[in-house]
Amino acid sequence: MTNKLIFFDHASTTPVDPEVLEAMLPFLKGEFGNPSSHIHSLGQGALRAMDESRVAVASLINAKAEEIIFTSGATESNNLAIKGITGANHKPEGKILISQIEHYSVLNPVKTLEKQGYKVEKIPVDKYGIILTDKLREMLSPDTLLVCVMAANTEIGSIQPVAEAVEIVKSYNPAIFFHCDAASAAGWIPVDVIALGVDTLTLSAHNFYGPKGVGALYIKNGVKIQPLLEGGFQEKGIRSGTENVPGIAGMAKAALLAKENMEKRNVHLLKLQERLWNGLEKKLKYFHFTGHPSRRLPGHVSFWIEFAEGESLLLSLQIKGIMAASGSACSSNLRADDEQGLIKSHVLEAVGVPQDICNGSITFMMGKDNTTEEVDYVVETFPSIVERLWAMSPAYADMLNE
Amino acid sequence: MTNKLIFFDHASTTPVDPEVLEAMLPFLKGEFGNPSSHIHSLGQGALRAMDESRVAVASLINAKAEEIIFTSGATESNNLAIKGITGANHKPEGKILISQIEHYSVLNPVKTLEKQGYKVEKIPVDKYGIILTDKLREMLSPDTLLVCVMAANTEIGSIQPVAEAVEIVKSYNPAIFFHCDAASAAGWIPVDVIALGVDTLTLSAHNFYGPKGVGALYIKNGVKIQPLLEGGFQEKGIRSGTENVPGIAGMAKAALLAKENMEKRNVHLLKLQERLWNGLEKKLKYFHFTGHPSRRLPGHVSFWIEFAEGESLLLSLQIKGIMAASGSACSSNLRADDEQGLIKSHVLEAVGVPQDICNGSITFMMGKDNTTEEVDYVVETFPSIVERLWAMSPAYADMLNE
Repeated sequence: MTNKLIFFDHASTTPVDPEVLEAMLPFLKGEFGNPSSHIHSLGQGALRAMDESRVAVASLINAKAEEIIFTSGATESNNLAIKGITGANHKPEGKILISQIEHYSVLNPVKTLEKQGYKVEKIPVDKYGIILTDKLREMLSPDTLLVCVMAANTEIGSIQPVAEAVEIVKSYNPAIFFHCDAASAAGWIPVDVIALGVDTLTLSAHNFYGPKGVGALYIKNGVKIQPLLEGGFQEKGIRSGTENVPGIAGMAKAALLAKENMEKRNVHLLKLQERLWNGLEKKLKYFHFTGHPSRRLPGHVSFWIEFAEGESLLLSLQIKGIMAASGSACSSNLRADDEQGLIKSHVLEAVGVPQDICNGSITFMMGKDNTTEEVDYVVETFPSIVERLWAMSPAYADMLNE
Repeated sequence: MTNKLIFFDHASTTPVDPEVLEAMLPFLKGEFGNPSSHIHSLGQGALRAMDESRVAVASLINAKAEEIIFTSGATESNNLAIKGITGANHKPEGKILISQIEHYSVLNPVKTLEKQGYKVEKIPVDKYGIILTDKLREMLSPDTLLVCVMAANTEIGSIQPVAEAVEIVKSYNPAIFFHCDAASAAGWIPVDVIALGVDTLTLSAHNFYGPKGVGALYIKNGVKIQPLLEGGFQEKGIRSGTENVPGIAGMAKAALLAKENMEKRNVHLLKLQERLWNGLEKKLKYFHFTGHPSRRLPGHVSFWIEFAEGESLLLSLQIKGIMAASGSACSSNLRADDEQGLIKSHVLEAVGVPQDICNGSITFMMGKDNTTEEVDYVVETFPSIVERLWAMSPAYADMLNE
């Protein structure tokens, strides 16, 4: 068992499904045409692949094909939605509401807009990381332009009541735009843009067994978006640039597979999740699960442990061949910029994890190919890792001596 | 010969080199880590691949590795440079100079800046499409913030005197930024950022046998750029978003191959170019080459023919198995928006091609794998295509009757 690596870090990325790679290969070999050169057969083939991929990706979220704009990934999609909506529907000093636990690719564009004069307010969440819809209702005002609530949070797994939030917002004023970052959720749980009622929604291929470097933005028919990348008028001018045809074909295949196998995968993932959750709970003291116990991504188990640093836990897990995440993958880039070498998670802070005794959480996110044997190995291995770290912790020693 | 397709459309895209695909595959299979998850071995592998790729891409243009920012392609790179420089170095009502024949991904962002208050002026070109450097000198003024001149033009093949232009601009005022779109040139002709003296320079992988969906922006050390895509602080915060590791590894391999084989490829391409140029010139009447006769991309032959529409020529060529371009690939997306079904090329207009008798040009851009047999087939086939179109042209009949 120890010779094999165990990948429990599907929160940061997923492997490319062999069938997805198979779908990409023709466009990395003979079918290399530029869709804009559709006057000749190679270009026509590429354009056809684009059309078919659009239908496939749309079908994953119950959208129309023409409502899908392909991008380079979730970060671009979130930036395009937020800057694009505010740019095309400018409201001087308008208000933007976002949940407290959004991803950096929502947080940071909104921060930039705040510097430009927009008012930004954060919708608080409960201890499970679920937005307080009553608070959202109170926060709405005539100057509100845009509301952003993610579908699910990578770090703590919680699934947001997006449909309810949209209902509240649109009942107050149907002209307020609603953007949903579904990068971590789409492909894992049902995401239906009609049922949700959102205006824009972000998809990320590499989060559901597709390739890196490709994503999509759902833009409801009629919603105006100012482009970020201007040029040769690809994607109806909303997103110019020669299309990543192999990546898009891969995303389409991943979307079809996710839709087809979602139920089957989830039965498996919920079994693994329960086994891991129960196994860890039984064996560990000073242990705190994060996120909602049931309204969470399937296969997602997250927690923090008193007297044990998240990063030290990850390193110890890595030595035992187990890969996991502490917070979101992206926040790890921020460390180098921080003099103390530690960035507090805004997500843990929002759910009320005591910042003085918590030094980072662990996110295990399992995938379709993980096994019960792997779960058992993690459950078996983890306590000794924690005890080793405790043995080195002055705070733990102090606590025992008290 | 007629059963085989002849790809003379390397101006719009190039096939992925089998060695490039080979370099990508590990990252589309087992090595699927997220570089931000560098606390575990899979993430570390991805981060290492990023580092190595950065060195390789930098070496193609004589840059330092830390001066390379990976993007989703040339359009993003051009937008990032132009909006990023103006954003970070804002000069109210500052002036931007661009050549008359820039790509849409330079033209359109600059158009947007013009709406925001920037003054925009176009540097004229001579009949060969080479910028008039004396005019550039006269156009510089204290409010000039940015100058953009491309390295080579895809449609007519002409190579610009970028080093000379930079020298003129920097002598006038070293604080003026100089951006160069080298998407069509890099990998085909030597591009040396030190020798050129530019501040930023755009690279596109799919233009030199790399994959679509990946590019880079060279940013000279010290030049400040405001990010377009904000999020998890990847690429030093200048370009957030989970990195397209397979694409970047592919771009790196393509850059190494381009550097290593540039001389050999160019000997071959110049031979093909001369053969095609001479062959067509001998056989055709009412025939006008476009672009500079010698300062042009190797393997690039472009022209227009009186009484024959560019699009009809392309369609007839396609029937004979020959793929080529009319103008740049990107402009083909604009057609649908034009009521008359025809978009005049701003490039042809700039070089003084009479717009009343020219209805589109042809661009043949050959690549490393094209052969003299293919050139001979095109030379042999093309005159009959033209004559067939002439036979259907009322204007041609009128001319004969005059």
